Amino acid sequence: MAANLETLFERLFPICRSITGPGIRRSMEILAEHMPLEVHGVPSGEKVLDWTVPPEWELRRARLWGPDGSLVLDSDGNNLHVLNFSTPFSGEMDLEELDRHLFSEPALPDAIPYVTSYYNRRWGLCLSHHQREALVPGTYRVEIDTEIRDGLLNYATAELPGESDEVVLLSTYLCHPSLANNELSGPLAMVRLYEALEAMEQRRYTYRFLVIPETIGSITYLAREGAELLPRMAAGMVLTCLGGPSETVSFKLSRRDWTGRPSTIDRLARHFAGTLPGYAVRDFSPMGGSDERQYCSPGFDMPVVQAARTVYGQYPGYHNSHDDLDFMTIAAVEDSAARLATFIAAFEEAGREYVNRSPHGEPQLGRRDLYPSLNSPMSRILSSDDQFDGRRMLNQLLGLLSLADGEHDLLAIAERIDFPVTELAPLARHLREHDLLELKSS
Amino acid sequence: MAANLETLFERLFPICRSITGPGIRRSMEILAEHMPLEVHGVPSGEKVLDWTVPPEWELRRARLWGPDGSLVLDSDGNNLHVLNFSTPFSGEMDLEELDRHLFSEPALPDAIPYVTSYYNRRWGLCLSHHQREALVPGTYRVEIDTEIRDGLLNYATAELPGESDEVVLLSTYLCHPSLANNELSGPLAMVRLYEALEAMEQRRYTYRFLVIPETIGSITYLAREGAELLPRMAAGMVLTCLGGPSETVSFKLSRRDWTGRPSTIDRLARHFAGTLPGYAVRDFSPMGGSDERQYCSPGFDMPVVQAARTVYGQYPGYHNSHDDLDFMTIAAVEDSAARLATFIAAFEEAGREYVNRSPHGEPQLGRRDLYPSLNSPMSRILSSDDQFDGRRMLNQLLGLLSLADGEHDLLAIAERIDFPVTELAPLARHLREHDLLELKSS
Amino acid sequence: MAANLETLFERLFPICRSITGPGIRRSMEILAEHMPLEVHGVPSGEKVLDWTVPPEWELRRARLWGPDGSLVLDSDGNNLHVLNFSTPFSGEMDLEELDRHLFSEPALPDAIPYVTSYYNRRWGLCLSHHQREALVPGTYRVEIDTEIRDGLLNYATAELPGESDEVVLLSTYLCHPSLANNELSGPLAMVRLYEALEAMEQRRYTYRFLVIPETIGSITYLAREGAELLPRMAAGMVLTCLGGPSETVSFKLSRRDWTGRPSTIDRLARHFAGTLPGYAVRDFSPMGGSDERQYCSPGFDMPVVQAARTVYGQYPGYHNSHDDLDFMTIAAVEDSAARLATFIAAFEEAGREYVNRSPHGEPQLGRRDLYPSLNSPMSRILSSDDQFDGRRMLNQLLGLLSLADGEHDLLAIAERIDFPVTELAPLARHLREHDLLELKSS
Repeated sequence: MAANLETLFERLFPICRSITGPGIRRSMEILAEHMPLEVHGVPSGEKVLDWTVPPEWELRRARLWGPDGSLVLDSDGNNLHVLNFSTPFSGEMDLEELDRHLFSEPALPDAIPYVTSYYNRRWGLCLSHHQREALVPGTYRVEIDTEIRDGLLNYATAELPGESDEVVLLSTYLCHPSLANNELSGPLAMVRLYEALEAMEQRRYTYRFLVIPETIGSITYLAREGAELLPRMAAGMVLTCLGGPSETVSFKLSRRDWTGRPSTIDRLARHFAGTLPGYAVRDFSPMGGSDERQYCSPGFDMPVVQAARTVYGQYPGYHNSHDDLDFMTIAAVEDSAARLATFIAAFEEAGREYVNRSPHGEPQLGRRDLYPSLNSPMSRILSSDDQFDGRRMLNQLLGLLSLADGEHDLLAIAERIDFPVTELAPLARHLREHDLLELKSS
Repeated sequence: MAANLETLFERLFPICRSITGPGIRRSMEILAEHMPLEVHGVPSGEKVLDWTVPPEWELRRARLWGPDGSLVLDSDGNNLHVLNFSTPFSGEMDLEELDRHLFSEPALPDAIPYVTSYYNRRWGLCLSHHQREALVPGTYRVEIDTEIRDGLLNYATAELPGESDEVVLLSTYLCHPSLANNELSGPLAMVRLYEALEAMEQRRYTYRFLVIPETIGSITYLAREGAELLPRMAAGMVLTCLGGPSETVSFKLSRRDWTGRPSTIDRLARHFAGTLPGYAVRDFSPMGGSDERQYCSPGFDMPVVQAARTVYGQYPGYHNSHDDLDFMTIAAVEDSAARLATFIAAFEEAGREYVNRSPHGEPQLGRRDLYPSLNSPMSRILSSDDQFDGRRMLNQLLGLLSLADGEHDLLAIAERIDFPVTELAPLARHLREHDLLELKSS
Repeated sequence: MAANLETLFERLFPICRSITGPGIRRSMEILAEHMPLEVHGVPSGEKVLDWTVPPEWELRRARLWGPDGSLVLDSDGNNLHVLNFSTPFSGEMDLEELDRHLFSEPALPDAIPYVTSYYNRRWGLCLSHHQREALVPGTYRVEIDTEIRDGLLNYATAELPGESDEVVLLSTYLCHPSLANNELSGPLAMVRLYEALEAMEQRRYTYRFLVIPETIGSITYLAREGAELLPRMAAGMVLTCLGGPSETVSFKLSRRDWTGRPSTIDRLARHFAGTLPGYAVRDFSPMGGSDERQYCSPGFDMPVVQAARTVYGQYPGYHNSHDDLDFMTIAAVEDSAARLATFIAAFEEAGREYVNRSPHGEPQLGRRDLYPSLNSPMSRILSSDDQFDGRRMLNQLLGLLSLADGEHDLLAIAERIDFPVTELAPLARHLREHDLLELKSS
């Protein structure tokens, strides 16, 4: 039942995607085999916020032949060889003129760079700097068989309903060609998160999954759905770069945190970074990043974080042919998805506001069999590292009872008494079953 | 007129107290010779908050005879030998069965531990671990002459009226048998505080003194008087463990401080700890402590601190026969009481809000003879260490005038200009006499 | 057109000024040649706040002859020789009696101290401690030709109107006799600031310039104009001690900062100190200082800082004859005035609240030609050290757009994204011209 991420990667990797066109559409169809994605289309030319939906781009094949007639570059070998969104071109020219249309990266001379030109029309080819330097003078032939035509910008959505119609948005992008960490890690992790959330016995929140082309996709989605989504939004997370070698999943916090009004998901990210190994936070910044820049623009100001492992710009393979399955591993994607599932499960509990039903004096725990001991029913709630520690649990219990005043959500209690919220959640449920706690009525 | 604390200690120490019964009642009568305590009784079985008033317990005598007929343990020698609240028992048994009823402390093998069983009915005897290890096999005879019967839970109160009917509560407990620091230091210090407060020319607040059995006593008192007390409550202080060798009197802050809403007494405790030698603070915690756990339960959330010297759990003699007059000294109790009297005198002034009556520009001090100098009347208000320092006093005076805006109480002013509030109080009174300051009308 | 500060200094230095009388009046007239000062007079005896306007004091000449008939002291040589506000006196006496009227400074034995006695009537002479020690026994003749008579206390004002009638007050004092740093540096710097502000193309605020005798002058001004000024007051600055050798212009912050409600000019002073070389801040204190003590008295609580270079009390020449043109330099005054002009120009922009007109998603910068590059129009706005840095400017631009939400003024944006506000101001104007930002309507 669970998706085989290796197989899924192998099917998606070779496709030449762009922000529009058959590549991203075919990729969405493949992803839809593992989660019930609905694919939407918005016509080229439609105004979306401050932008305009671009036309579709299709690559059929791009080739370059050398002066001796030999094939120098072929997009069938690696689709990074064509400038993404290149106009079609066919013709002959000498090396000097050709060179004005070539892109390489001198600092990483054996890598083919990934270059785009979505909004300025031009043609171009990308190659390793070694290969570029080996080009000899003479007449070259270029054949770029692409097409730019009006069509649709696509985005895909799926939803898992919960008790509340408050929405948690999980957003990832699928618009880069053959790149691994900075492309496929996000959608692959999303498939696993979908599986984990679907398997939950009950969900407090409604989960919305969104697969888009980066930037213009979130702008288009917000133009269409932002006004409806905003008042229902509990939190959001952009999934990107989740397959690298870093030991840590880090959260870029939202603009709300940056402007002194941290949302629950910001507070939870800080809490995880402070109390659990393998999690970190980064400050919000409007400079650099992914689709959170749109969700967190001041007009929306959504509580959306960005989750990443080895972040864009922090590894040499970023945006070039080194970003492949040698750099990214499926195991790292699985680990990231598991960590994020733990985080989301905690998010379900973090904002709950409990009220002590016996707030005058301490309740008599003894007659309720609520003193934690190895023989008590409470030992089934393990308090730490799966080792039962009665004193630790008693401290958690007294802290919960003291702070369950309707002014502190579970996360605030955890922060105040300095225990992970993941330990407090089952204890709070236990006390609720014993009528010592109840949920604050809103 | 002032009580002789040595004599008082000698009379109280031998009595076998518990949370109910003749021991605590007799102890309250002795204490009442030095302050006008009124003893109240609440019948066994009455519901008090989440608890039920327990029956009375009386120890007449408990003894253990060895296989050779010799007397091994006798509560007449040390009343710690009987499990506090032990059921009566009379019978013979071999060492193996007896052992299940014995309590000793292997980590402190020459001390008799203090053990209680208020709410689970059983019989038991306590002895040093050395003595326990020396017991030989054979038949033992046990005679525990105790009685558990319906009766009263007692608490005792006294009150010193002040200008306002706002109450400062001073609470201590008197329910442990022959223990010194963690029992008698609190009541002895309370006697001294009563004397100091009675001797004050005028009191701003009404002082209420409360002597109770620990935990169940404060729960019972709150059940009876909490609703009446809460809206009148200016502050409170639990007195415990005030006779040990520590150099410092420390205040455990209230839950209000812990939850970001520090009360005046919390702020004053932090101020004393920050500016005066011999004072310290501890953070609030619902885990561990004394009756402040009840006063600070979320339903009451009273501004009650706990004052202690060498704190429970920080000395090996805690809850065993080492907690005697070798460990605790009457001199330390006297010193604690003197420090707390200074603190309470400052509390009388700390919350006063003064208003500058000449707030536009600086008042002309010269024509009012308010420039501090050795010849001025102000030299009678000594500014520091009983040495007159004119520049220091002028700085205090200018600070007072600048901040007496009705937004800062005297303590906030002291904190802002970084002088002890104990120095500012007499200066503020002097400026009030010269009509430069007045009390803010509420 | 610009004033020659050397010449101005030479004309003002010899005049014997006091808080009232012909000395300060004549000095104001000279200053009025360089800025359109209007001189106001308030009659002696008028009640001003808690004070009374003093009479006028005039020094004609003060001399002391020794036992051998030689002239020992002559105010024509240095007007510091006469106690400022000395009563007239003429007579002979022996050294012992004379000595009770002499003032010298043993710690600085070659300096003539500057001593005043405005409100206690007495006569006196000041001299170096060396000179005092050399006095031989015998009969001395004293001739102090001064006059204390009812007249006027003078203050002088000038105003430069701005777009708004919100006022920025620039205040300096002119009541010390022949002293340089702690007297003339303030009025000289004010002349330069007047010139700089007059030359501005447009001023957001109305600038009011005030020349007064220290303390009693600000008290008198506030008594007359405080009620009118207070509601219109945007900020104020007291100019004092601006000509010493320190490398730094420092701002003593206002009482608003001290009491946790920093005004815009306080925040800007902290920002300059934190981001630009050559600026520093000092905490507010009601103890010591200049006229800001009156402006910041709690009844007015105006947002007035004090700007100084080498501060009163931090150089040995303070209040004695060493405070001359050897200690103070005109170059330092010029540098101070230039730094303050930069600061005031930033103040014009710091409080502006911009609103992003395209707040939903990021605006498409490319189609607006707003990507900073060496070829773009934006390169005319240099981003740092007069070197164009496209990435730096793009970061500033994205930060501005993200935070222009009507909740952050330009200074708050600068602080949040950690760039000097002086760099953001021209960029904000550029974005406003491109309709991406607008001023928040109030």
